[in-house]
Amino acid sequence: MPVYTVSHVQNVRVCVVMVGLPARGKSLLAQKIVRYLSWLSIKAKCFNVGTYRRQTASQPDASFFDVENPEGLAVRVEAVNKAVADMMSWYGDEAGVVGILDATNSTRVRRAWILKLLRENRIEPLFLESWCDDSELIMNNILDVKTTSPDYAGKAPDFAVSDFLARIANYEKVYETLDMETDKDLTFIKLINVNAQIIINKIETYLESRIVYYVMNLHIKPRAIWLSRHGESMYNVSGQIGGNADLSPQGWAYAKKLPQIVADSVGPGELTVWTSTLNRTQQTASNLPFKKLQWKALDELDAGACDGLTYQQIAEDFPEDFKARDDDKYEYRYPGGESYRDVVIRLEPIIMELEKNENILIVTHQAVLRCIYAYFMNIPQEQSPWMDIPLHTLIKLEPRAFGTMVEKIKANIPAVSTYKEKGTFELGVDDAKVNDVKNIITRA
Amino acid sequence: MPVYTVSHVQNVRVCVVMVGLPARGKSLLAQKIVRYLSWLSIKAKCFNVGTYRRQTASQPDASFFDVENPEGLAVRVEAVNKAVADMMSWYGDEAGVVGILDATNSTRVRRAWILKLLRENRIEPLFLESWCDDSELIMNNILDVKTTSPDYAGKAPDFAVSDFLARIANYEKVYETLDMETDKDLTFIKLINVNAQIIINKIETYLESRIVYYVMNLHIKPRAIWLSRHGESMYNVSGQIGGNADLSPQGWAYAKKLPQIVADSVGPGELTVWTSTLNRTQQTASNLPFKKLQWKALDELDAGACDGLTYQQIAEDFPEDFKARDDDKYEYRYPGGESYRDVVIRLEPIIMELEKNENILIVTHQAVLRCIYAYFMNIPQEQSPWMDIPLHTLIKLEPRAFGTMVEKIKANIPAVSTYKEKGTFELGVDDAKVNDVKNIITRA
Repeated sequence: MPVYTVSHVQNVRVCVVMVGLPARGKSLLAQKIVRYLSWLSIKAKCFNVGTYRRQTASQPDASFFDVENPEGLAVRVEAVNKAVADMMSWYGDEAGVVGILDATNSTRVRRAWILKLLRENRIEPLFLESWCDDSELIMNNILDVKTTSPDYAGKAPDFAVSDFLARIANYEKVYETLDMETDKDLTFIKLINVNAQIIINKIETYLESRIVYYVMNLHIKPRAIWLSRHGESMYNVSGQIGGNADLSPQGWAYAKKLPQIVADSVGPGELTVWTSTLNRTQQTASNLPFKKLQWKALDELDAGACDGLTYQQIAEDFPEDFKARDDDKYEYRYPGGESYRDVVIRLEPIIMELEKNENILIVTHQAVLRCIYAYFMNIPQEQSPWMDIPLHTLIKLEPRAFGTMVEKIKANIPAVSTYKEKGTFELGVDDAKVNDVKNIITRA
Repeated sequence: MPVYTVSHVQNVRVCVVMVGLPARGKSLLAQKIVRYLSWLSIKAKCFNVGTYRRQTASQPDASFFDVENPEGLAVRVEAVNKAVADMMSWYGDEAGVVGILDATNSTRVRRAWILKLLRENRIEPLFLESWCDDSELIMNNILDVKTTSPDYAGKAPDFAVSDFLARIANYEKVYETLDMETDKDLTFIKLINVNAQIIINKIETYLESRIVYYVMNLHIKPRAIWLSRHGESMYNVSGQIGGNADLSPQGWAYAKKLPQIVADSVGPGELTVWTSTLNRTQQTASNLPFKKLQWKALDELDAGACDGLTYQQIAEDFPEDFKARDDDKYEYRYPGGESYRDVVIRLEPIIMELEKNENILIVTHQAVLRCIYAYFMNIPQEQSPWMDIPLHTLIKLEPRAFGTMVEKIKANIPAVSTYKEKGTFELGVDDAKVNDVKNIITRA
């Protein structure tokens, strides 16, 4: 029994048509929107025209992008045609909801062509322009592209920068920005220097306004987010789920050690600590010398009728539920309780705050942490409920342009395992699988 | 143990400085923002300069507003000074968070003066301009003002319209709109013809972005929202709270009659029906021939450890909780469950959807319905948990410029009362207090 959100019912399909010169952060925006919508169970996919172009021209130099180069132009037109054709098939064959056409789409002629095609297929066009004249921002983006784009893989850094600047100059010759007068009949968002100024034009559907709000909240200042489960609780020790137990002695040992671990990772800066409303997260955070905030939305997944039971008891008392949960853990809702999908919906405002804020440490619960982690690490929903997030471990996330860096800092305080493998109801006695983890840097 | 939201912790105070010619819907916007923030427990208040001016000049004609009329100018400057002084006292004495200065604030000189004052007092200025050149919109606003403003009470309608147009013309002489270039250092939102175009400039804090998102979602198309509790449930009959009971025979009778009652009220149009995930709302909606949407956020207030008990049992088993709840029903949280404040926080996205959508019928639960009703009817939080929302009654809300019209349509199917008065644990056997209600039109 899925919980629908309005986007699933309005039968609205949207195409986000990116607009902007190279090195304006379009691909990053496109990827973030896909990640956010996917996390909300809205089927979204990015179609990057550069990827299609590379099938024919893998590492062309700047002259290829000159509008007066007929061969380059032919390849580029072919690439956009292929990308658009694939996107249209995806809307049909895979019931896509939000496609993103990631390209410069720099002229009104090109945009009019896309607009016509979308309208003919009853897909709502949402133009999203990233306009930027802040040379520092542009240069940062160029350095990013230089190090990450396949167009410059194996090339000398100096060549990459100068060639890319020449490519941008070729686009500038024909570029037409979205204009409040000329383009007033289009549905569009124009971001000026990230979000210093934003122009919003004719946003009408719910789905469009969600995308707009998300994009509005993004910022690009470097920052980190710290996550931790509560320390081991008395219920963890007895193998019960849910409840509002206090910390075990080992849990208190983690609470005592946490300030030092946090200080080592954060440095001298200030943090704000977010906890749930349950004792075990507040006790875990109790020694941290920072401002604290309780969020009901950070409470553990509600196990409903199974609250307070062990997995073994659930398997005995609710055998059908036990199996149904293993079969589809993301969608399964405990009788009178919640599913992972329910948790994601209530976490959405938390994610928005995390995108807007800096220097947050969240102390929360296994299922909630899995959902937050899945958002930042782009982990598919069918996998996220099965992730192993050990006790007594501080996780540092650093969102970057093309992924999120992860560091896991183990407190070296023993704890029971709360990880239940599919099909079993036993928990490991020790988190052996993860407790050998020292500091891992993972790139999502 | 209150659940804080970020706005309570950031210690940010914001002043929304309205900007715009008369008849641009500024006061309506200001009132809606106050209502929305108050509902979210963010202390907000509107300071309307016109109200202060009327203390000296109650019904001046258009010439009073001519910038070359020194006497009029003196009175108007005095009024704005008083309004601003009162607002500043309110920030200090009453710990105000969002003040709204509702005036035309039409010149850069005036805005610079306010800006300086706010900065000196460490209050973040957020300018909110309503700019409009759609003559139909303006004329609608003029007709609204003509019928609702004390400035024209008792005056001939024709005089009111022509005098008001002359007043607007006087403001137009000096009006300076917010400009993306000239005013680029200000934090502002500029609404162009309601929300056809929106310019957002330098929005930085969380609280500002919440106000912006809310304002973005407002529309002014006339519409209605229908609300109903589920039909009487088996738990209602036995006096138990919470749970996931089925409808009683009388509840099923309501479910059977509901399609006709709805059809009579809605007419030939289409609706979308929103229910909670619980059996009793879905059974109540089961005969409605419309698209249906389940929202976890519409589930009843979670009674935690008291789920399934009667009020008498709660009074016996949890005497302290029973008393605590009666003492502060809005803040009281059931052990392991929710408070009304928790429900409001999870309902916030629902309110946003309701502001954006049209033709919605919500079938939900007593506490949830109280919270939704409180938002639209601007009912203070200490009162909202005590409102009597009877079973077997369809409520039609019509948000208008200066309030919400309410119609209560009784199904004339008997039901137990689920209304518990403060200090008692008994429920009336019949909803006598409300079942004598026929069709009431109330203006909030």
